[in-house]
Amino acid sequence: MRIGIAGISGRMGQMLVEEVATAGAALVGGTRHATPADSPVPLFQTVAALAEASDVVIDFTRAGTAEAHAEVLIAAGTPWILGTSGLSAAEEAIVAQAARWIPVVYAANFSAGVTLVLALAEQMAAALPAEQYDAEIVEMHHRQKVDAPSGTAIGIGRAVAAGRKVDLTDVMQSGRDGHTGPRVTGEIGFAALRGGQIVGEHSLLFAGADEQIVLTHRAFDRRTFATGAVRAAHWVSDKPPGLYSMKDVLGLA
Amino acid sequence: MRIGIAGISGRMGQMLVEEVATAGAALVGGTRHATPADSPVPLFQTVAALAEASDVVIDFTRAGTAEAHAEVLIAAGTPWILGTSGLSAAEEAIVAQAARWIPVVYAANFSAGVTLVLALAEQMAAALPAEQYDAEIVEMHHRQKVDAPSGTAIGIGRAVAAGRKVDLTDVMQSGRDGHTGPRVTGEIGFAALRGGQIVGEHSLLFAGADEQIVLTHRAFDRRTFATGAVRAAHWVSDKPPGLYSMKDVLGLA
Amino acid sequence: MRIGIAGISGRMGQMLVEEVATAGAALVGGTRHATPADSPVPLFQTVAALAEASDVVIDFTRAGTAEAHAEVLIAAGTPWILGTSGLSAAEEAIVAQAARWIPVVYAANFSAGVTLVLALAEQMAAALPAEQYDAEIVEMHHRQKVDAPSGTAIGIGRAVAAGRKVDLTDVMQSGRDGHTGPRVTGEIGFAALRGGQIVGEHSLLFAGADEQIVLTHRAFDRRTFATGAVRAAHWVSDKPPGLYSMKDVLGLA
Amino acid sequence: MRIGIAGISGRMGQMLVEEVATAGAALVGGTRHATPADSPVPLFQTVAALAEASDVVIDFTRAGTAEAHAEVLIAAGTPWILGTSGLSAAEEAIVAQAARWIPVVYAANFSAGVTLVLALAEQMAAALPAEQYDAEIVEMHHRQKVDAPSGTAIGIGRAVAAGRKVDLTDVMQSGRDGHTGPRVTGEIGFAALRGGQIVGEHSLLFAGADEQIVLTHRAFDRRTFATGAVRAAHWVSDKPPGLYSMKDVLGLA
Repeated sequence: MRIGIAGISGRMGQMLVEEVATAGAALVGGTRHATPADSPVPLFQTVAALAEASDVVIDFTRAGTAEAHAEVLIAAGTPWILGTSGLSAAEEAIVAQAARWIPVVYAANFSAGVTLVLALAEQMAAALPAEQYDAEIVEMHHRQKVDAPSGTAIGIGRAVAAGRKVDLTDVMQSGRDGHTGPRVTGEIGFAALRGGQIVGEHSLLFAGADEQIVLTHRAFDRRTFATGAVRAAHWVSDKPPGLYSMKDVLGLA
Repeated sequence: MRIGIAGISGRMGQMLVEEVATAGAALVGGTRHATPADSPVPLFQTVAALAEASDVVIDFTRAGTAEAHAEVLIAAGTPWILGTSGLSAAEEAIVAQAARWIPVVYAANFSAGVTLVLALAEQMAAALPAEQYDAEIVEMHHRQKVDAPSGTAIGIGRAVAAGRKVDLTDVMQSGRDGHTGPRVTGEIGFAALRGGQIVGEHSLLFAGADEQIVLTHRAFDRRTFATGAVRAAHWVSDKPPGLYSMKDVLGLA
Repeated sequence: MRIGIAGISGRMGQMLVEEVATAGAALVGGTRHATPADSPVPLFQTVAALAEASDVVIDFTRAGTAEAHAEVLIAAGTPWILGTSGLSAAEEAIVAQAARWIPVVYAANFSAGVTLVLALAEQMAAALPAEQYDAEIVEMHHRQKVDAPSGTAIGIGRAVAAGRKVDLTDVMQSGRDGHTGPRVTGEIGFAALRGGQIVGEHSLLFAGADEQIVLTHRAFDRRTFATGAVRAAHWVSDKPPGLYSMKDVLGLA
Repeated sequence: MRIGIAGISGRMGQMLVEEVATAGAALVGGTRHATPADSPVPLFQTVAALAEASDVVIDFTRAGTAEAHAEVLIAAGTPWILGTSGLSAAEEAIVAQAARWIPVVYAANFSAGVTLVLALAEQMAAALPAEQYDAEIVEMHHRQKVDAPSGTAIGIGRAVAAGRKVDLTDVMQSGRDGHTGPRVTGEIGFAALRGGQIVGEHSLLFAGADEQIVLTHRAFDRRTFATGAVRAAHWVSDKPPGLYSMKDVLGLA
């Protein structure tokens, strides 16, 4: 299998290169922001050219590129492993549209542990009534992170909302500050901590009157995301068009 | 429904009395160690007499009574809600035998949250291979507790072992101290903290090379156990003989 | 010593009544919002009348009363134990003014443990340079709480700021949400969780590149606040006018 | 300053080599178990030869070498930075003896954060009476670690004991398992978790009836130990003979 990497120059790009090798796949090459004089990997001027040359493209670039990438991947008929975070609702709609034509694995977080957490979060929310158990999500990331809450935290919130058969946008409460009034029953709270070089920690709490249940995930090394993305690339190669998650890849759906 | 309480005088007995009233059931009375001159609740001299007068008996007494209680409850044909902790393997065999004749709900912990934790623990263990994720269980209880690990911790360990299709007794490692050697793959570790008036905290950790997943339960009030036991009493009233757990009561099995 | 209680009818008022008795002091009585037909404790129509009859007044009422209470306590020359939370900056200035005429013990939190945490927080901040260690404060309280962050969290933030010789208002960042940009060096972050009946949990994190230090306080029972307030009442009885904290009361200043 | 490294071939040895360069000191070379055909750093056959050539020797080898190393370092008059863990009481006595002739910085853990934790632990223990607050220490390390509790955990226990003016050996309770009886007042409990590649986590809990205070340290990268050891090497160069700790190096003593 020939894998192309959109955004090959960053830290994640480097780990993807290594994980492609470890997995025994062929690295086609990648795109990067600025093209240097020499490069240890083949570089492509455009994602369109990369898509034409690849069996699957892994894309950890940045919000704002989804529309352009969707267009060229559909044109090339190349499956899309999409790990870009911070997509807008409009961009997510574009991704869903693209999945009618090509297989897309879209995840805010490609680690096996987080994927399991998402599956468990939905079950917990279904078993613990919102009237008796208040759900809160707290996450911590490194000091360079520019948005809050994290995409993974929002993913956990969506899983809780799904377990309760509500829409997250109707019950989300992020970044409490000032006079908030008492907590609204059914609300899902979000809080964000930033500091040091924390790769990513997420906790989901269900607080009842007499007991509390907490599910926590800690990532110690970004490599876990690269490993998962390459695993998704292998998995997707024989799948029909559709929007897939890491739960599908790991057989937890 | 008429509920009898073996061990009605202690803290748990008092809360059971209150929860029986809250649930709208009839309190038959109970047995206690020493019989006082007057008592706010009807007292019985023997568990045999209590069993004859009750539709179901809730039993939070102490290890060592299981054989005698099993005998009289079978004789009376009365269902048994058994929350006594620290039963020996021989006593557990007696309980299993009794369940051929009467319905028995036996649980180390009757809280809804712990029951959910037990169900999730088994799933987590099935999804996270023992070769890659080390399982550890740590619990904390008040300073009066006389044994370690807690019955609930052992229950969580059994759930992990079940998820991995092994026998807990083959992989249990409790109270590491001194020269232990490197951790054995597949081992399930236990650690016990004691202090203050902590009702009960349990954490199950799965530690991989690059990530960690932790499931934690904290009980803030023993009432959560009394509430669960009365719920089990209601549930068991129309069931055939058999050995049941709180997972059965809550529909999580 | 004769102790008066402003706000005697609530949960905290009841525990104060009990703790005054435990401490062997005399309960003068208290004020309450609405005056019932009968009351187990002597009631006063005004704080002015209560102050005249008492050697010290304990005040856990609500923001907005500070100015009126300051006036009548100064007039009566009665020491003031002030635990009302959510005071505005203007009200805090009034409290500081009052302390020129009467002894005032003002604390967001009267527990011995929190007072120790405040003392340690300042030391930690002085030892861990802001350029290398990012400070974050996260707190959790019951679902009825109407403001965020808690007064105790702000107190911890002030202790960190004092250890770094900066002003909290210049570096406080509360309730991150949306596009925040990268963390600013020296910033002190605050996050608030709400749920269940949590009495109060506070964590102070210092996150460096390779290590993290966390100091956590958990209150399990509000009684710890009542115990501390009565201890402060005893301590303050022979002190000259001045603004005191629980650190002074416990000898940690 | 010329720094020699006893045990230069392991992971810690490699990081020490890098940190010596970062700190602008001169690397003399080191000793290693087996001498390879070629080596990127100068190798010495014996610690005696290394000590003669160095202004200070950093020693992260293994228990059992302390007596021999003490002898040759005293002979050469070379300061000793000793980070070997698992020393016996007899070896610790030898180290204390050596400190009469040469300056010795001996620490179970060279990180700045752990050193701060040790200083705070002693203060906390002095402020929180053993009759009211139960002290427990729990640590987690990677699956390769062969002993329990960790040297750092024991160091924290000694700091608590010092704050309470008792001897740790009289109150230490490690690895509770089975019928333990109720907790003994004043006891300091230890528990050890093992799993994954955790560099080192330590928590010190003080559990009272109504509140709990917890101090936690997490090391994410062993480099923090190498950085601290090289810092100690610089600090010790102009010191008289004596037994020093990292608290002395960081000015927290």
